[in-house]
Amino acid sequence: MAVKTVINAAGREVPVQINGKPVIPFKGVGKHRPAGRKYSPPIPSCTDFPPDGNKVVRSLEEALRKCGLRNGMTISTHHHLRDGDLISNRIFEIASEMGVKDLVWFPSASFPCNDPLIKYLEDGTINRIEGSMNGPLGRFVSEGRMNGTAVLRSHGGRVQALQDGEVQIDIAVLVAPTADYFGNARGTGGQSSCGVIGYGKADSMYATKVIIVTDNLVDVPCYPMEIEGNYVDCVVVVDKIGIPEKIVSGTTEITKSPDRLLIAELTASFLEKSGILKDEVTMQAGAGGTSLAIAVFIHEILKQKGWKSKFGFGGSTKYMVKMLEEGQMDYILDAQAFDLDAVKSIENNPNHIPYPVFNAYNYHSKGNLTSMMDIMILGATEVDLNFNGNVVTHSDGYLLHGIGGWQNCLHARNVILPLPLFRDRIPVIVDEVTTLCGPGELIDVIITERGIAINPLRKDLIKKMKGSGLPLKSIGELKEEAERICGKPQKAQFEDKIVAAIKWVDGTVIDVVRKIKKPGN
Amino acid sequence: MAVKTVINAAGREVPVQINGKPVIPFKGVGKHRPAGRKYSPPIPSCTDFPPDGNKVVRSLEEALRKCGLRNGMTISTHHHLRDGDLISNRIFEIASEMGVKDLVWFPSASFPCNDPLIKYLEDGTINRIEGSMNGPLGRFVSEGRMNGTAVLRSHGGRVQALQDGEVQIDIAVLVAPTADYFGNARGTGGQSSCGVIGYGKADSMYATKVIIVTDNLVDVPCYPMEIEGNYVDCVVVVDKIGIPEKIVSGTTEITKSPDRLLIAELTASFLEKSGILKDEVTMQAGAGGTSLAIAVFIHEILKQKGWKSKFGFGGSTKYMVKMLEEGQMDYILDAQAFDLDAVKSIENNPNHIPYPVFNAYNYHSKGNLTSMMDIMILGATEVDLNFNGNVVTHSDGYLLHGIGGWQNCLHARNVILPLPLFRDRIPVIVDEVTTLCGPGELIDVIITERGIAINPLRKDLIKKMKGSGLPLKSIGELKEEAERICGKPQKAQFEDKIVAAIKWVDGTVIDVVRKIKKPGN
Repeated sequence: MAVKTVINAAGREVPVQINGKPVIPFKGVGKHRPAGRKYSPPIPSCTDFPPDGNKVVRSLEEALRKCGLRNGMTISTHHHLRDGDLISNRIFEIASEMGVKDLVWFPSASFPCNDPLIKYLEDGTINRIEGSMNGPLGRFVSEGRMNGTAVLRSHGGRVQALQDGEVQIDIAVLVAPTADYFGNARGTGGQSSCGVIGYGKADSMYATKVIIVTDNLVDVPCYPMEIEGNYVDCVVVVDKIGIPEKIVSGTTEITKSPDRLLIAELTASFLEKSGILKDEVTMQAGAGGTSLAIAVFIHEILKQKGWKSKFGFGGSTKYMVKMLEEGQMDYILDAQAFDLDAVKSIENNPNHIPYPVFNAYNYHSKGNLTSMMDIMILGATEVDLNFNGNVVTHSDGYLLHGIGGWQNCLHARNVILPLPLFRDRIPVIVDEVTTLCGPGELIDVIITERGIAINPLRKDLIKKMKGSGLPLKSIGELKEEAERICGKPQKAQFEDKIVAAIKWVDGTVIDVVRKIKKPGN
Repeated sequence: MAVKTVINAAGREVPVQINGKPVIPFKGVGKHRPAGRKYSPPIPSCTDFPPDGNKVVRSLEEALRKCGLRNGMTISTHHHLRDGDLISNRIFEIASEMGVKDLVWFPSASFPCNDPLIKYLEDGTINRIEGSMNGPLGRFVSEGRMNGTAVLRSHGGRVQALQDGEVQIDIAVLVAPTADYFGNARGTGGQSSCGVIGYGKADSMYATKVIIVTDNLVDVPCYPMEIEGNYVDCVVVVDKIGIPEKIVSGTTEITKSPDRLLIAELTASFLEKSGILKDEVTMQAGAGGTSLAIAVFIHEILKQKGWKSKFGFGGSTKYMVKMLEEGQMDYILDAQAFDLDAVKSIENNPNHIPYPVFNAYNYHSKGNLTSMMDIMILGATEVDLNFNGNVVTHSDGYLLHGIGGWQNCLHARNVILPLPLFRDRIPVIVDEVTTLCGPGELIDVIITERGIAINPLRKDLIKKMKGSGLPLKSIGELKEEAERICGKPQKAQFEDKIVAAIKWVDGTVIDVVRKIKKPGN
């Protein structure tokens, strides 16, 4: 049975309900005005908790039983242990052993370590995942094999969905490198330190039940506390919550590719010549190999000019930490640590500060830190002639990435996408993105190894960059150049079935992902 | 027209509605189980806030107009500037100039500096105060001159009322010694540093509109942030939010009275001999002259024994800071600073930590820090033969004090009330307290200069203290001794009219204060 669809303000065909619940089609950037009140969980009472504050139970299973785990519940986790997370899968193992079905997993992100969950998606323990899906999990979804429809949200959109009650968490299972028996918890200390656990804070505030899982139980008070024990129902102590060497994962080394280094150099040069890079600049880069190289070039310029960045927003890396330590950055405001240097810095440097996602990214808020930022360096799998961006699907149509903070970051003053003109001989600039994740009006500059395209809406930047000596081109020219080299890529083929919805930062549906049409089907 | 009343579980006659809204009579300690969900304010959107994050408006008046100030609204403030607060009165001055009527003032406490508000209570600008009232404001209420009925809550009860939606703040006006233009704010720094502003946090989260008033505007990010700018609508910059020398006020010097010093000595001795004072002890004292002396005696014992307190909970004072600095206390967890040494310590000592009221005191929470604490030293205006305590009225029936954190602190393991046997020749131990603020079952020990009474419910303590050499007496004996010296005091005379309600920590009504019957009336 096909669901009713409509064409949204971005021209995309989207359903009017997802997983049986009505949704709002995207109305345009800044056009949807929320109504109603924030969501609120049930009122608890100290009467139901031990006066000595000790909420430790013997096992995760006992905690899940105590919290009333049953069919159809929504279970959330945070992703700060990244690919080293040992707990998320365990939840569904236990659920499966208990015979619980139709759960919704609501992680702040998933990683390859979560691929074993495919068996629980197959056997009906999990109905669907609402969160990012990389690699095999994404493929599973793209092939139309997940029972429910996936819903992908940005980090800020996830907090918005919790705050607004679009997603109601029954049980949040939050790992914590350090916690006390009352449930006060933090991201530093112990054998599995991951720096911050801030993506779990919204879960702790809005979930009906909250379980903290730690391998480093300390005396009250666990301080600084990122998650407050007054929101916590149970504490579980295990031998190991994470594999430290895998907590740091993904691309965290500078690119060695000459093309990518050229892109990085062009980006730094663009930022300098445009005047966007300046004393007191505020910025965010990310952890891809090119982004890291850009950070190094920017650091160099700041040093040469005697400038300082007021703050960098993390995802933090060792390159950002270096700026902080060498005096070219006043603060790192951090949402997650991407490498162990960053973790160590959070533990030791009072100017490296865990920063609330509510404040930085939640669009249903009284303003965001992100919109105040000068420089935002982002990636994309595809960009189209209207500067629209895609970060979730590849040109073959497979859902292979999450959104992360990408959509939220688009609200910064200058959004720069340094991208290779093609990847594996597939052009990155296309006529129309396979999946629309971010409207082109928010993307200012595309920087490739063969030229820089400024969004025509940024007349100020175009004017400033005239005569800069940088290789300015139109986005059409860049696309043609790539196609001259690689040929025009085939469009991905899809069936009708919607397998995933992409939410915009305001909770509306900006696009969907459909089931892959296999050759011969 | 008299409201309908009932007899509550403590035997007190209380109304079934207050200020036109239904209320729940006290059911007994731990007996009321809340239903429903937490309150939640309207969902905001970044669409309505400046992308550059700058929320500064020209004046408090402009901010109040922007926030839609109108008749009947509830306006909240916090009390961290104590008697040095220059802003609270200004709100109602502006409201009066605008012709706004029937406001409810919901402060976290009021001070003598707020006495000028009497004229706005008289002219109808303010309908009522829901919060503590000392001196003239209390007298005004007791004389039946306030239009609405006062509602007194503990610090934790105030947070509970906000969380549960019993009180819905329309506009919170929160002073901040330091804030940035986005509204991130803290209690340290600048010319009016008061250490912490945590009592304003619940207001920022639950109010519909939030105004930050500061005299120390800093660049983003104001850090550490106790109030997060994502909850803030406007920022107002003024010359001066407070008079520093009055920010520290109340009794913050050690008693010089020989009787009080004797009480302090007996208390310390009791704590030591009972084994309640021990290595790793957790405690809270307060800022009265006797409490301070007790803190000094306790510090001495800790030093002698080579013991350490795990943490002290503040209201912090220089005596607590001394324990921290000299190594007899690991942490001060702080809700408010009582003197400038405490303010300075919060600014400089990473182990002196602003602590959330939600965590320490809110009874409608998944546990409280308070119930984990070993030693709680508290005061009272009266205690009766059943160990019931009164902290709001004097024996003459006048409402002269607020509850502060007193009711919340009663949940600690050992609640000790060091009290003089009489004040101004009026016995402190009475047949029945004038106003019931705390049930006797939660009060463990009364220590006077003429003897110590242990609550018969604490059989363990009575057994332990046998043969301790301390002057143990029954509470009846203490009362008789006082009456032998001072005579039996006359009972206060009241009219029927209810002028104030006293809430228990769970939001139920434990008692009321009635209008004073003047001699000759």
